[in-house]
Amino acid sequence: MVVVMNERATEAQIDAVISRLIELGMDVHRSSGVSRTVLGVVGAHKIDPELIGILDGVHEVLRITEPYKRASRTFKPENTVVSTDDVRVGGDEVIVMAGPCSAETEEQVHASAAAVKRAGAKILRGGAFKPRSSPYSFQGLGEEGLKMLRSAADAHTLKLVSEVMDISQIELIAKYCDIFQVGARNMQNYTLLRELGHATKPVLLKRGISATIEEWLLSAEYILAGGNNDVILCERGIRTFETATRNTFDISAIPVVKKLSHLPIVADPSHGAGRRDMVAQLARAAVAAGADGLIIEVHNDPDRALSDGAQSMFPAQFERLMAELRIIAPAIGRSICLEPVSRRGWAR
Amino acid sequence: MVVVMNERATEAQIDAVISRLIELGMDVHRSSGVSRTVLGVVGAHKIDPELIGILDGVHEVLRITEPYKRASRTFKPENTVVSTDDVRVGGDEVIVMAGPCSAETEEQVHASAAAVKRAGAKILRGGAFKPRSSPYSFQGLGEEGLKMLRSAADAHTLKLVSEVMDISQIELIAKYCDIFQVGARNMQNYTLLRELGHATKPVLLKRGISATIEEWLLSAEYILAGGNNDVILCERGIRTFETATRNTFDISAIPVVKKLSHLPIVADPSHGAGRRDMVAQLARAAVAAGADGLIIEVHNDPDRALSDGAQSMFPAQFERLMAELRIIAPAIGRSICLEPVSRRGWAR
Amino acid sequence: MVVVMNERATEAQIDAVISRLIELGMDVHRSSGVSRTVLGVVGAHKIDPELIGILDGVHEVLRITEPYKRASRTFKPENTVVSTDDVRVGGDEVIVMAGPCSAETEEQVHASAAAVKRAGAKILRGGAFKPRSSPYSFQGLGEEGLKMLRSAADAHTLKLVSEVMDISQIELIAKYCDIFQVGARNMQNYTLLRELGHATKPVLLKRGISATIEEWLLSAEYILAGGNNDVILCERGIRTFETATRNTFDISAIPVVKKLSHLPIVADPSHGAGRRDMVAQLARAAVAAGADGLIIEVHNDPDRALSDGAQSMFPAQFERLMAELRIIAPAIGRSICLEPVSRRGWAR
Amino acid sequence: MVVVMNERATEAQIDAVISRLIELGMDVHRSSGVSRTVLGVVGAHKIDPELIGILDGVHEVLRITEPYKRASRTFKPENTVVSTDDVRVGGDEVIVMAGPCSAETEEQVHASAAAVKRAGAKILRGGAFKPRSSPYSFQGLGEEGLKMLRSAADAHTLKLVSEVMDISQIELIAKYCDIFQVGARNMQNYTLLRELGHATKPVLLKRGISATIEEWLLSAEYILAGGNNDVILCERGIRTFETATRNTFDISAIPVVKKLSHLPIVADPSHGAGRRDMVAQLARAAVAAGADGLIIEVHNDPDRALSDGAQSMFPAQFERLMAELRIIAPAIGRSICLEPVSRRGWAR
Repeated sequence: MVVVMNERATEAQIDAVISRLIELGMDVHRSSGVSRTVLGVVGAHKIDPELIGILDGVHEVLRITEPYKRASRTFKPENTVVSTDDVRVGGDEVIVMAGPCSAETEEQVHASAAAVKRAGAKILRGGAFKPRSSPYSFQGLGEEGLKMLRSAADAHTLKLVSEVMDISQIELIAKYCDIFQVGARNMQNYTLLRELGHATKPVLLKRGISATIEEWLLSAEYILAGGNNDVILCERGIRTFETATRNTFDISAIPVVKKLSHLPIVADPSHGAGRRDMVAQLARAAVAAGADGLIIEVHNDPDRALSDGAQSMFPAQFERLMAELRIIAPAIGRSICLEPVSRRGWAR
Repeated sequence: MVVVMNERATEAQIDAVISRLIELGMDVHRSSGVSRTVLGVVGAHKIDPELIGILDGVHEVLRITEPYKRASRTFKPENTVVSTDDVRVGGDEVIVMAGPCSAETEEQVHASAAAVKRAGAKILRGGAFKPRSSPYSFQGLGEEGLKMLRSAADAHTLKLVSEVMDISQIELIAKYCDIFQVGARNMQNYTLLRELGHATKPVLLKRGISATIEEWLLSAEYILAGGNNDVILCERGIRTFETATRNTFDISAIPVVKKLSHLPIVADPSHGAGRRDMVAQLARAAVAAGADGLIIEVHNDPDRALSDGAQSMFPAQFERLMAELRIIAPAIGRSICLEPVSRRGWAR
Repeated sequence: MVVVMNERATEAQIDAVISRLIELGMDVHRSSGVSRTVLGVVGAHKIDPELIGILDGVHEVLRITEPYKRASRTFKPENTVVSTDDVRVGGDEVIVMAGPCSAETEEQVHASAAAVKRAGAKILRGGAFKPRSSPYSFQGLGEEGLKMLRSAADAHTLKLVSEVMDISQIELIAKYCDIFQVGARNMQNYTLLRELGHATKPVLLKRGISATIEEWLLSAEYILAGGNNDVILCERGIRTFETATRNTFDISAIPVVKKLSHLPIVADPSHGAGRRDMVAQLARAAVAAGADGLIIEVHNDPDRALSDGAQSMFPAQFERLMAELRIIAPAIGRSICLEPVSRRGWAR
Repeated sequence: MVVVMNERATEAQIDAVISRLIELGMDVHRSSGVSRTVLGVVGAHKIDPELIGILDGVHEVLRITEPYKRASRTFKPENTVVSTDDVRVGGDEVIVMAGPCSAETEEQVHASAAAVKRAGAKILRGGAFKPRSSPYSFQGLGEEGLKMLRSAADAHTLKLVSEVMDISQIELIAKYCDIFQVGARNMQNYTLLRELGHATKPVLLKRGISATIEEWLLSAEYILAGGNNDVILCERGIRTFETATRNTFDISAIPVVKKLSHLPIVADPSHGAGRRDMVAQLARAAVAAGADGLIIEVHNDPDRALSDGAQSMFPAQFERLMAELRIIAPAIGRSICLEPVSRRGWAR
């Protein structure tokens, strides 16, 4: 921590700040220049910088270490690869997760799973518990939905990612899914994050709609600190003044996270765009920017979906997107689903 | 709902939209002008406007009813007053809630309670479970803290408001507090909100850091829909590009909420400002703008507080603020704590 | 400037950074801790911190001086009072500027001027050149409008503030007005600001819709650096994600500016609210927060105004607001228009 | 325009609104439902919706036409291609503009021009008049800089784009450049835009840092309305709460503009990222999302640049990026500089 004193700070004010810092157990190095005194403080990660910032004569307090540790690339310089069996997120292959917003019927789940598998997805996405901003909207099928999703994933040799909203759901969801998803609204639900730190399955952690990248990495830290090292970050758009799209997809978050952290990062262009006719553009952009994967809403009949229908792709749109991605990925030394089950040759 | 077609929409596209709406159980009134066709749709609150917005030839879909009902002033035109015994939030008196960020020691809690009571506060605030963005920060004392807070509130004839972070804490906190506080990070924790809809004590619902006022009222709707009518809204600042303050206190939210809803609204200038030397200015502004109350962090020794010390007021600052508020409140026909225990005459 | 090196920065990287800084004419103090090396740099205000931030091994570069000088309270600790004859902005009296958005007709300008004078305003506001976001909207009357405004101001013993949009208009507007207004969209029109630095009349500088307070003070610096010390800052709302109001009035900007700068600050609640039924609330809040003045749109017949009608107050609303402000101002040791021409006694 | 009345609006209120609309020359169609009355209004583009929104009993006013005309895809469904001689922006080829932030010396301009030409750029960028947020920063070389840029462009068979900040500079800059650039801070400098509407050279119009896409298109409308149809839009990042990057590059703006307008759109990843190590990622993303071109800062010696050095690419980085883009562009049916002068074969 560096404490910058006001240009007109008195000796008494400077001494009071130094005494307070020493009282808090810090080592202080004083350096006085022509116009200001600056204090270098060692051991400062234990104290709240704002508590010093409010003292008389202090101009500003500058933090010089990241507040997160385990999520930082300084802590672990090499990339983390999160695996669930043979599916590896964060390696050379760009992994695509796809499927409906929520499980509605057996038929819908199976048809959607078949479609995304055929196009090259490796992981099925789908929710059984839905966080909806209105209490009057469809809230999900619960365990019945989880069963449908697991059965469809197994039938099509896909892994399964599904959202957990509350600690009371962890045990149930763990019985069915391969990866826990934490939604944007729960990014700072610390009770939930702490509990997932003890889980034995990976966690896909979505960025909160107004979370800074630093706060997002701090939320990952809650999970990592509990002993679960398998965290996948997921950018899904932030809230800004622009209303032409539901959210503003923060494409820069991809290179920023790659620089600050070793954790893999995937992109959710469906929520980023909010409407299906802009999903492909954002998906291609995310891969071009270096994302380790994508999570995309695909529904066998989106016009009749009970939730998020407007942003769910038709199977044919998704298939075309996957073909485009197979051209783009090699530009940055990545591959994408080299051997789709039934459509070998598409990637030519 | 009003569906506005593109200027170049074809007859076939218009017919397809109308058919889809009728299939969904709506009544449709078609009105064609020189340049466009506009469809008036009745019964539309049951369907997702975005699902229609994505259809071919549709320019825009305009919602004409608020998505919330019970929280709306249309539903209940007269102001709601939330009472806990003789303390009434939403009436003529501006109610002040004050106290430390979190319970730390017996002595600290009692000294802080005494100070805020003396200055005219009616409700003690203080947390026992703290949501902290870093897993390495102080997380609160739990039940021990609640006991301290209850004992101090009783000793000084104050009511008590305290934060609940998870449904597992509801029963415990209900044993000690008079009002549940839902923090900004939990504003969209629907599992928690739904459960508080069945509680028999009032809920103070803070606005999420990036929540629109509409989303905030929808979160209130979750509680109201469960049967608990005693919701107090609390503005505490939103996240914007400005970094000079931790948050941007949205003073306009006060008149906007008064217009849209019957629920009382209080202001939290401590979190809005983020530093103690700007709390009084925002507190005065909030009362001048029409807030029904304030919730302010006051600590008997803020420089040694374990959390939020930089934004906690000294007792003397708080007392001075209360004197200023006693001058301001009458400008808009309100009073503020007419008879403080020990300082009668201050308001002259 | 403080340069914080990465925890894993090599000696060679550190040496390269030091060499580069010395080459740029800086003095460097190296301080190595357990985990990091930190470099204190003297003379750094001359160089671009981002140029150092991009060097290999650099974690972060922290600036320790404000980029503005003359606008800073460090440069001039006592408050600046901007005077035009006997009207003093920044003193004990809260100065109110009021009038129509734009000059439309003789009658409208005179009726509006009479109304605001009667209620206690000291300065008439009104535009002759209007910056409109659509090229198809009313663009103002030009010099004819300025003549109307000057004549009405003189007839009612008011000072006049009017907007200048381009350097080509300076000379003309100077002939009629007492204070130049620079609109939010021109806050970073540096050609204009530099020219106004040579003007001999005060400048009211509105904050840009997305300007940080630091950038705003830097824009003031352009004027001050040219030799014109009479700058009045004006907060008018910033752009955020909230759509319930046209802008989010940043009430915190008032105490923040008071802390960082010696320049007076006034508030524009009309643009901050965007609709007349919320102007009074924001105006009261601004005065309670410590604003040195207000600039408010008042029109003798707002429903027929050619611009900004929805946010213009009726004369009776304005009069009532002034009465409320006379109660609030004393709470913070200020007065407001103690002796209005025709309504002596109101302030009792 | 659609006027939605309150659920509790009285007959008298509804009649008053209808009378006001008719008085303003509108045709009104009234439609009363179970809970509300809705008024369809024809001819409404001439009036300010907010003026109706403020009337008693009105719930909301919904606009159903875009406020811009000539910039709209409804007005002109086919894509506009902006040409300067044989360089066509908006066609199948993705056009790259590159060069230094500002002209500094003969040698620097020529070396930079040679480097960008070699890698495949078609247009040289570079400024002679610099808008800088601090009055104490380098402000550009003026005409001397323009001469250097023109000479370098001619020597390397490049077109030239350069920024114009004020109407007084138009004539001078027109003598040297092929495309006028309007910077983000001048996006709403209507005096300048109106004048460029009469120019005979294309205008590259950057999006303001907090401009909505609608406002940006309205600014384009100012130029189009004057008769100049050659407008190129340029996304360069918007201001949000995220501080990890200087701006948040709004990748979604590319598909949104393509949908709403016929004008070509290019991306400026240099300002979007703010630091050179993130420019390539954003540039690739922009092309993958469908941008018609890029404008990138490249400097022959960025560490010694007088402005924007930290975000300027080294020539070798730029060359590598161009090679990556040649792989990506075909994924969406585009090409990028098929025959660079000296490196034929790169695109394999």
